[in-house]
Amino acid sequence: MKAILLSIGDELLIGQTLNTNVSWISQRLNAIGVDVIRMITLSDNEQDIYERLDNALSESNIVLITGGLGPTSDDMTKDVLIKYFKSDTYIDNIALENIKKIYHSRGRTLNESIEEMAVLPSNCIPMYNEVGTAPGMLFHKGGRVVGVMPGVPYEMQFMVDKYILPFIVNNFSLNTILHKHFLTAGKGETQLAEKLVAFEKELPTNFKLAYLPSVGKVKLRLTAKGGNKEVLQQSFDKECNKIDQILSSDVYGHDEEVFESIIGNQLLSKNLKLSTAESCTGGYISHLITSVSGSSAYYNGSIIAYSNDIKRNILGVEESILAEHGAVSEPCVEAMLDGVNKLLHTDIAIAVSGIAGPQGGTPQKPVGTIVIGVGTLTEKKIKTFTLTNNRERNIQLSAIIALEMLRRFLLR
Amino acid sequence: MKAILLSIGDELLIGQTLNTNVSWISQRLNAIGVDVIRMITLSDNEQDIYERLDNALSESNIVLITGGLGPTSDDMTKDVLIKYFKSDTYIDNIALENIKKIYHSRGRTLNESIEEMAVLPSNCIPMYNEVGTAPGMLFHKGGRVVGVMPGVPYEMQFMVDKYILPFIVNNFSLNTILHKHFLTAGKGETQLAEKLVAFEKELPTNFKLAYLPSVGKVKLRLTAKGGNKEVLQQSFDKECNKIDQILSSDVYGHDEEVFESIIGNQLLSKNLKLSTAESCTGGYISHLITSVSGSSAYYNGSIIAYSNDIKRNILGVEESILAEHGAVSEPCVEAMLDGVNKLLHTDIAIAVSGIAGPQGGTPQKPVGTIVIGVGTLTEKKIKTFTLTNNRERNIQLSAIIALEMLRRFLLR
Repeated sequence: MKAILLSIGDELLIGQTLNTNVSWISQRLNAIGVDVIRMITLSDNEQDIYERLDNALSESNIVLITGGLGPTSDDMTKDVLIKYFKSDTYIDNIALENIKKIYHSRGRTLNESIEEMAVLPSNCIPMYNEVGTAPGMLFHKGGRVVGVMPGVPYEMQFMVDKYILPFIVNNFSLNTILHKHFLTAGKGETQLAEKLVAFEKELPTNFKLAYLPSVGKVKLRLTAKGGNKEVLQQSFDKECNKIDQILSSDVYGHDEEVFESIIGNQLLSKNLKLSTAESCTGGYISHLITSVSGSSAYYNGSIIAYSNDIKRNILGVEESILAEHGAVSEPCVEAMLDGVNKLLHTDIAIAVSGIAGPQGGTPQKPVGTIVIGVGTLTEKKIKTFTLTNNRERNIQLSAIIALEMLRRFLLR
Repeated sequence: MKAILLSIGDELLIGQTLNTNVSWISQRLNAIGVDVIRMITLSDNEQDIYERLDNALSESNIVLITGGLGPTSDDMTKDVLIKYFKSDTYIDNIALENIKKIYHSRGRTLNESIEEMAVLPSNCIPMYNEVGTAPGMLFHKGGRVVGVMPGVPYEMQFMVDKYILPFIVNNFSLNTILHKHFLTAGKGETQLAEKLVAFEKELPTNFKLAYLPSVGKVKLRLTAKGGNKEVLQQSFDKECNKIDQILSSDVYGHDEEVFESIIGNQLLSKNLKLSTAESCTGGYISHLITSVSGSSAYYNGSIIAYSNDIKRNILGVEESILAEHGAVSEPCVEAMLDGVNKLLHTDIAIAVSGIAGPQGGTPQKPVGTIVIGVGTLTEKKIKTFTLTNNRERNIQLSAIIALEMLRRFLLR
């Protein structure tokens, strides 16, 4: 089953808005076995929309349109659809009440052009907007489906999940398709791929393993397609188990699980309090930890020791360590760990010191030299890394590596 | 002058990669007076690429293609171009040497399909890749330009800036177009628009003012089009001056200037040392400050006081303040400011305490209540804000507001 996506809006064409809608919709369609064969961004122009729609319907069964449904004069998507499907219109009372409710709650006054949003073509299935004003429209004619939605991401997402996907699943016979994500951090694509060489060789031909890297992390996606659903599910579960066994503790979670929450749960279940002492990462590790709601239950806080004075005066790193080994050294990070654990009364800590760059490198310690430590007062794991030349990348990578070291430390 | 952008790659169609290239290219083309009328994403399919290219050239003078230039078998963009422009090919030695150099420096071995990247159509202008391997191609025929580039953003950006834009400017007579950005933080779109009502009314019809909001910030873009360049530049400078005068200190910088660097320069020129004491922002302010290379010259560090114990024991907030007013209060933030200035030996500090949510709100202090303070030991500015229900948004907004308060404090 093939789909084409049309995105309508001048703000996309002038580069003011990044089109995140199409990649989101594609992922959702892929997950139910629909292939997106083309994405087209076009302007709020009546003739252009008409022609692209007509064209798209000659090449695919499913056309999803976003944008151009608002109340202003440059929104003309609905007019085109009414013309294209030669439809009468009516005032949809549910949609109208919803628009009125939202406008009143915001203390804004209605006018004719706003109420106009509730006028719908008679031959569409209305997609009521529970998170905004303009309703969407679903047309089903001659084995083809056209879905029309607002361009606002969360309104579009609501309609795709509530109306579009169920409608497609119920009205087309789609290939069975199964997905699972395996989440890893701190290991490169190649390192993971090496472990999976034999596994990939033996993978049935209707299975596919994809590596999706981002800064410091690699997400693996196993996909299986085709045949009887129960049979497929059985062999899919078997292959998933194999990946979990091969990668073992490399996998921190699956699908929608969140790295920082998994670590939070480890700390909670062991009843441990965490603190951090950051130099070159400048608070980014603390930011990631506290991005989780409820993190105050296990996270006490951090000392951002950007100057050596703070390492000495607050964290208690001895002057002799700084003089002999420098701030970017394993002895310094060891002292930072002890210092912050004692000062903030925690059981376990992360400490980082390094040269994020682009300035500050030396021949002995070039830009990208980062020392990362995790530990308690009695047991520590400290390692020196050589990362990149890019400041932003070094900060992000160090934070992910540090959190992964903590996760592994807590696994023991 | 009209342009159409073609993005080629299955990773885009399955939603694995977000297409940031098209918005970047659009902005660049707009800046020289070229309008993008359509963006099309298509798969690595020979026939499809051929047909879309042919179609695009019938509707526009400029077609820019990204993706499908790599060494693997699914990269077929170049083959299509060779066929489309009925061209012979040759081995380009400059491109080949570049590919060899990069492969050797990475310790990887060359093979035929990699060397194949240096085979180019004879009737193109080669766009040598100084930041990657695959060269780009520029075709100029019958008053039409086709630019073909790798999909890797920085390689594409390099070729657009070095080859494509100068070529277009030299070969087409374009409308004169001028842009300037005015950067603001901490004020809403409406607040700014109100100040500019009279200005916008009197703006010449060939001028346009756009408001580009992001979290906590609004960027204003003034654009002027048409006519004699020098005449336009004169009236453009006049209108720019008016905006600067009307918005005055609301404007922290122009065009590519960076908020955190501007504040860093203020501190440097006044020879002041900064520290922060963060509760609900959890290190995010510190992260923003240290994202600037060289920030160690004015930033000593931070105490992330996520628990009340730290506010009391490390920052010296008196128990009576916490008992009477709570941690989310102006007296507490005042004490945090004094505490961190003294402890980290700084001249000026930022302190924040609040309820980021989604848990932790009360009827008196709902989620989104954030107290932000800036000050020295003798002079302070402290304010309580009611922000949003969204945790991530509250953290980001608080950080921007805090930095803007610091900037204004330093202006006096």
